[in-house]
Order: sequence, then structure tokens, then C-alpha cells
Amino acid sequence: MANNEKEFVKEVTPRSEDFSQWYLDLVLKTELMDYAPVKGCMAIRPYGYAIWENLQYQLDRRIKATGHRNAYFPLFIPEGLLQKEAEHVEGFAPEVAWVTQGGSEKLSERLVVRPTSEAIICSMYARWVQSWRDLPILINQWCNVVRWEKSTRPFLRTSEFLWQEGHTVHRTHEEAEEEALKMLGVYKEFVETELAIPLIYGRKTESEKFAGALHTYTIEALMADGRALQAGTSHNLGQHFAKVFDIKFLDQDDELKFAWQTSWGASTRLIGALIMVHGDDRGLKLPPRVAPVQAVIVPIITRQKREKVIDKCRELAKILGEDFRVELDEREGYSAGWKFNEWEMKGVPLRLEVGPRDMEEGGVTAVRRDTGEKQFLPAEGLAGRISALLEEIQQNMFQQALKYLRENTRRVGSFEEFRQVLEEKRGLILAPWCEVEGCEDKIKEETRASIRCIPFENEINERGPCILCGKGNGRFVYFARSY
Amino acid sequence: MANNEKEFVKEVTPRSEDFSQWYLDLVLKTELMDYAPVKGCMAIRPYGYAIWENLQYQLDRRIKATGHRNAYFPLFIPEGLLQKEAEHVEGFAPEVAWVTQGGSEKLSERLVVRPTSEAIICSMYARWVQSWRDLPILINQWCNVVRWEKSTRPFLRTSEFLWQEGHTVHRTHEEAEEEALKMLGVYKEFVETELAIPLIYGRKTESEKFAGALHTYTIEALMADGRALQAGTSHNLGQHFAKVFDIKFLDQDDELKFAWQTSWGASTRLIGALIMVHGDDRGLKLPPRVAPVQAVIVPIITRQKREKVIDKCRELAKILGEDFRVELDEREGYSAGWKFNEWEMKGVPLRLEVGPRDMEEGGVTAVRRDTGEKQFLPAEGLAGRISALLEEIQQNMFQQALKYLRENTRRVGSFEEFRQVLEEKRGLILAPWCEVEGCEDKIKEETRASIRCIPFENEINERGPCILCGKGNGRFVYFARSY
Repeated sequence: MANNEKEFVKEVTPRSEDFSQWYLDLVLKTELMDYAPVKGCMAIRPYGYAIWENLQYQLDRRIKATGHRNAYFPLFIPEGLLQKEAEHVEGFAPEVAWVTQGGSEKLSERLVVRPTSEAIICSMYARWVQSWRDLPILINQWCNVVRWEKSTRPFLRTSEFLWQEGHTVHRTHEEAEEEALKMLGVYKEFVETELAIPLIYGRKTESEKFAGALHTYTIEALMADGRALQAGTSHNLGQHFAKVFDIKFLDQDDELKFAWQTSWGASTRLIGALIMVHGDDRGLKLPPRVAPVQAVIVPIITRQKREKVIDKCRELAKILGEDFRVELDEREGYSAGWKFNEWEMKGVPLRLEVGPRDMEEGGVTAVRRDTGEKQFLPAEGLAGRISALLEEIQQNMFQQALKYLRENTRRVGSFEEFRQVLEEKRGLILAPWCEVEGCEDKIKEETRASIRCIPFENEINERGPCILCGKGNGRFVYFARSY
Repeated sequence: MANNEKEFVKEVTPRSEDFSQWYLDLVLKTELMDYAPVKGCMAIRPYGYAIWENLQYQLDRRIKATGHRNAYFPLFIPEGLLQKEAEHVEGFAPEVAWVTQGGSEKLSERLVVRPTSEAIICSMYARWVQSWRDLPILINQWCNVVRWEKSTRPFLRTSEFLWQEGHTVHRTHEEAEEEALKMLGVYKEFVETELAIPLIYGRKTESEKFAGALHTYTIEALMADGRALQAGTSHNLGQHFAKVFDIKFLDQDDELKFAWQTSWGASTRLIGALIMVHGDDRGLKLPPRVAPVQAVIVPIITRQKREKVIDKCRELAKILGEDFRVELDEREGYSAGWKFNEWEMKGVPLRLEVGPRDMEEGGVTAVRRDTGEKQFLPAEGLAGRISALLEEIQQNMFQQALKYLRENTRRVGSFEEFRQVLEEKRGLILAPWCEVEGCEDKIKEETRASIRCIPFENEINERGPCILCGKGNGRFVYFARSY
């Protein structure tokens, strides 16, 4: 017995000791992913992919509820198409993978493996849009994309990743703007509700916006090491792409006009956010709504009552399995304590222990992953109690993360203080900026903090002299070091 | 009004006139897909993708119910990995896309865009499998794959397509064989139940099996033009891949052994089968279980009662929308008759007409796409009646297709008759074969008919002298021209 346990013992660097190593240890040892024999690529293992499936399901139903439909466009983009939009190609060309040969034939035109699909999708939209009656087009795609990254990190930055990208076409600028903001709202509500991750949100600066967009809106989360992570973006593309790809429609007034567009995306990066916001020294801590296993049943075996306990556990797994994602850990050769540790590391929100004493009392002992709190749950109304407990865990996790976000969002009075906070505490800094790109660049150069977003005016509408140059009467914006 | 209608009139070549052109017209005009500006690739439009989503949902739940879990492996395979298995590389190298450059850097080792994922997945399994305790591994992946095809056809053969590929690892040959057959059974039940397509099934001959497999099992459907289509395959890979990728495990007897594997896949090709089995001169005919729209509500407007009828339709759409995939066609500027034609072309199983007379009588007029039959459905218990009708349509479509399959499966007495049947009627031919590859090749050369499968012995166990050479006492096998 000791032998098996030893063989399977998994050690994770404590988060408090080395955040970066903790993250890498954790994603490997909880079998969320494994490194693949292709530069910068990973295999997403079943436990990690199950999280992605839960995220997909929850986001997809919101995308559909707002009137969008899914479709699928080709993986490859002919070089000429990508080059049509100058800013876009400049932004993406340095990081694309090139297909130059098909079978034994050298291609006459190179193909790009999509880093994002504006170019290929716009070339199709140009055919599909003729009249105002064809608008709006509200299409989303779930797919893989490739960006040839120099330095990679599981889930956060990989050469290939999975995402959804929405691409819409509208009659007017107002409609496109409304759509871009609506989808930002969908992302925000989705991430806060399902992933229990509180967010800040707003507009990106000109230098941080998407290559080819008019405006980029973003949701940003704060990781437990004080660095920000962009968790989803929504772009008002204006007429840039419509003009280069010739997406025109005959309007009701019989005039031929260029269409207005948006695009928006969220990716497997969200899994990274989930780990880095909620995880702790003991391992992952997954919010019940997206956890692959919401409750694990661990039998507490004594020699005499073995069969009885196992039978009880199986019965429980079957009943609870109708309402929850439940796993019964029947493995032999591992102690209950070892199993507790493993399931804690895997971040399962609720552990249900069933031992001879629980059976006598006719219930289970429930242990929360978020607080470690232990409580006896009587058999009567068990499903209802578990449901309430899971909801409580979900809410508590959000509140904990919100508390952290608030405590780590600081207003500073001087650039000296700005530097100091970044060095000693990191987190988000809310400070005024003169809106000159030079100041933005210089702050980044000196502190490695970028402007994460310019909050919307109805949220934060203060102004003040630029934290760096002291000039102007600039908006307060969020700064942070980021992933 | 006439103007709009003209603008949107869609003409489809009758199936009876030119099957091939009918198919191409139909997939374009019903907006299942559109050609993309990349050789051999297509965009799957929302109406087509919704079919795929329904198929995915139905197949995925079966894959999970049989104990498999989803995962995701990289798109790219290093050239060296692909080349490890000789038969495999020989089978796929002529039709792969090669990535030779990443960003501005020329790659030191070329990458293949996956044509199938045995090589990359086996390289990971070699790490994950150590002990008999790690087995079985039951993993499935939904993804895109690329095969550089010379001649392509929407859904049936495209350079990029979507599919699922299961990859499993087992302790023994028996377990692998059982798995391969189990998944063939899953495919068969799925296609017959959900797609209403009856199948023949069995083992592929040596020359038709998957590159690198021990045995390939297949389900085959018969299209309405008398050609067969391979609709899904399941492979017992034996130890071929385990040996070249070094997938070994310490067995219970403390011996180090090579593992046994399977792989199995089904793709967007199934959408092509759906069209070609059920469609008719009027257009698509979609089985209710996978139809994106199960019932369309068409208001029959008269000048006086316009508002009342529309209100009634909206109410109906809302109520029925809870149980069915329903669409209400409120478009103005189109006659009811024009809408009828369009929704028939789109293959919607049930049309619900609501006019002033239906309202007086308090119900709707339902018209079946499969039979054209019209019936009045009273308001009371409407959802139940529609549910029963949809189920009836599903069953009827399967029975119709089964009748066609049976009527077009022929036993022939001589090679002369074999030729004649193929020239005049096509369909499936059940005839004995001596099991010599030379005869198989020669039959193919002379008649363009290949052996679709060798039926299982418990299904058809007759024997006779080879239909071509007259020698031996061979098994009866299915021949057909195929897609």
C-alpha cells in the first residue's frame, strides 16, 4: 500500500514560495495538460479539457441567447488575403505559421494558419452581404488558432490555442458599437458568474488595441500574484475591414454603403485565470459551476464494514450523479488521507466522506475545498443541501476574489508611489494619464506596467494631472503588470 | 412583393435529372456551405453547422456514456514523429499540408498539419502509460484535420474537415478488439437512430483498411444515386503504433508489455450522407432529430386579420419553442407559397400554417416534409401531437431509406450480371470473393466497384466460388461504387 502511494505522490511547489513554479507544477500534476513534442504546444488532458467543455457550454449558450449562430471557416488563409489590411498584417505576420507545401506540390501562394479569422471571414461576408436585409450577420466560431509565440506558458500563451471568435456585420456604426459593448457585457457576466472571477473592464488604449480595430474593449482579471490578465476582448472594427474586403450593402435609401463590423474572442486562457485566481498552496480550487467533478465521494474503509460502505457509496454516487458531476474514488491501495490530498489538489469543491460512523448516523461528512469546513449532512434532502453548499462555495469564491481585487487596487499620489507599489505589492493601480502615447510607453518601460483599460465614464469619471508628466487633465486608468 | 421574391428565388437542378449537380446546387442554395478562397476548403454556414452541432451532441453523449473522455492534442506533428510508422506515413504523406516557417524563422524540422492524430497522440501516450493501472486510456478528440485532396466535393471530401477521433489504449488484444467493435456499434446505432440512415457494416479488406491498422471496421450507407459512402470507421491498431512509439506497461505479472490500441472516427461527411440519402427534387429532407429547425411556423396573412394571425404565431412559437427547435417566418414581402417552397428546400420536417381559418378552429395546419401530407392539429395537446408527428417522420424516413437499401442490394449469379447491375442500377452487390487481392483489384479496375465490407459471420455467413475467378469458397462481401 505504502508503495503505491509513494509511486503516485505528487509534489507541488507552494504558491507562497514560487508562484510561477507552483503554476507549472500544478497544471502538470493535476493532469490539466502535458507538454507536447511541438514547440510551444500542449496537450489538454481530459481533466483540463472537461473544464474547457464546461466553459464552452456556458459561454456558447449566452452567445446563442444573444442571437448569434455558430459556423466554421477554413483554417488556412491565403497570404494575399491576410495582407489586404495593413495594420492587421503588421500585427500578425511576425507570429504566424506558414504552409508552403501541399502533398508533394509546392504552393504557388503561401497559406497562413489562422492567427484569427477576420481576413478569411470578411472575404466570405463580402459575398453574403448585398442588401440591408442581409444584416446584421451574427456569427460565432469555436476553433483552434496558431500564433508562433517566442515564450510560452501552459494555457496562458501557447502557439496553438482554442477559442471562440465572434464576427458580426451591421448597418450602422451605432449598431456595431452596441454589439461590441453587448458582447463585453456577456463576457463579464459569464466570467463573474461561472468562473467566480471578478473583473475590471473598459477600453484599451490605442497602442494596446487589436490590429485593425477602431476600439477594443477588454475584461481584465487580477491574478493572485498581483499581475493582471486579459480575459476576453471585444472589438468595434469600424469600416476598416469592410473597406479592404469590399463588404458593401444597398441600404434602404438605395445607396451602396460599407458595412460596420465587430469581432470578439475568449480562449483557453481562461483556464489559466481560473487556476491563478483561486488556487492555493494545496492546489487547484475550482468553482463548482465549471469544476469537472463537483463532489468526490471517498469511502472511509474499515476492515469489518468494507462492503457495506462501498455499497452505500455506490448508491450515493448513482443518486447524486443525476444532479451533480460526481466521482466515487474506489481505488484500492490508497489511504483515505492520500485521496483527500489528491482531490484537494485537483480542486474538487466538495468532498463527501462516507465511513461507518456516517452510515450509522445515516448521512455523509462534507468538507468544503474553499474553507476546509467540515459538516455532517443528514441523508434526508441530501441533494438539496449539496446544491445549496455548492452555490455557497461558488459565491464565497467570488467574494474572496473580489475582496482580493479591491484590496489590491490602489490609487497613488505620485509616480514614486506608483513605482513602489508595483515593486512591493503589484496589483492594479488607478491613476490619471494624460492620454499621450509617449507617457504610456515610458511608464511601461520604467515599471513594466501597462494600461490595462480605460474604465467607462459611467463607472469612473475622475480626472487629474498625468501620473508621469503631471500635465493635462487625464482620465483615471488602470495600470498593472500583466501576463 | 414580386420583386423580392424574384430576387430570392433559388433554383435547384432536379435530383432525377442530374444527381451530382443537384447536390452541389442544394448545399449552396440552402446555405449549408459556401466555397472558400482556399483550394478544396469550404465555409460551413450556420444552417449547415447547426446540423453538425446536433450530430456532435448526439454522438458525444454516446462516446461519453461508453466511458470515454474528451481531450485536445496539437494540430502540428513533427515530420520525424509521422515517419515513425512506415505504413502510416506511406498512407498519409502524399496528402498532407506542410508548415515550413514560423514567423520569420525557417523551421529546422517541418511540421505536418494533422491528417489524423495517431502519431502525436501515441507520442503522449508513451509518457502516460507506465503500469497496467493506467489502462485502459479512453480518449476522444473533436477537431479539424487536413488532407490535401486533389478533387474535392462539399462535405464529402474537403481538404479540411471536422471530425472526432477516438484513441484508446488497452492491456490485451481482446480488449482492443472489443473496443473497436463496441465503437462500430455506437456509430451504427447513432447513425441509424439520429440520422435515419440504415447501414451495412463489417470489416474492410486488407487493401481498404486504415494505414497502420490490424483491422478496420466500417459502417457504409447507400446514397440515393446507388453509390455507397463510408460513414465511419473503427480500427483495431494492434500493437503497431505501440511498438514504434514505445507504449509499454508493467503488467500485473511484472512483465513489461506493449499496449494494444484502437482508433475510430466520424466526420462532417455525415452531413453529405444526410443530404444524399434523404433529399429529393424539392430539396433537403432532414430527419427531425438532427434538423436545425424541426418545425417552421408560416403565418397565412389576409389584410384584415394580419395582427391577430401574427400574434397567434408568436404565441405559438414561444410555447412550442420550449420543446422543439422552432422558427417563425415573419418576413414581409414574400407570399406564403414562396415560403413553403423555401422551407421545403431547406428540409424542415414539419410546416405549421396558421391562417384565419385555423384560428377560428383553434389549431394549426401541419404539413409533413416527408410525405407532403396535410392535417389539422387542434390546439389542445398540440405539443404532444407535434412530438408524435416528428417521431413518426423520423421513423418513416428510416423505413423509406431501409426499403431503398434493401431494394438496391442485389445478389448476382455471374460477373456479367455484376457488370450489368452496376451499369444499369448501381446499388450494393452481395457476391462471393476468393479473398485474393488480385481479384479485388481487377473487379475495381473493370467496374469501379470496390469491396465496401466483409459482413460479420453472424450476419451473413454464406460462401461460394469467387464472382470473378470462379475459384475458392469465399465469403459473400458487399461491392459498390462509392464516394
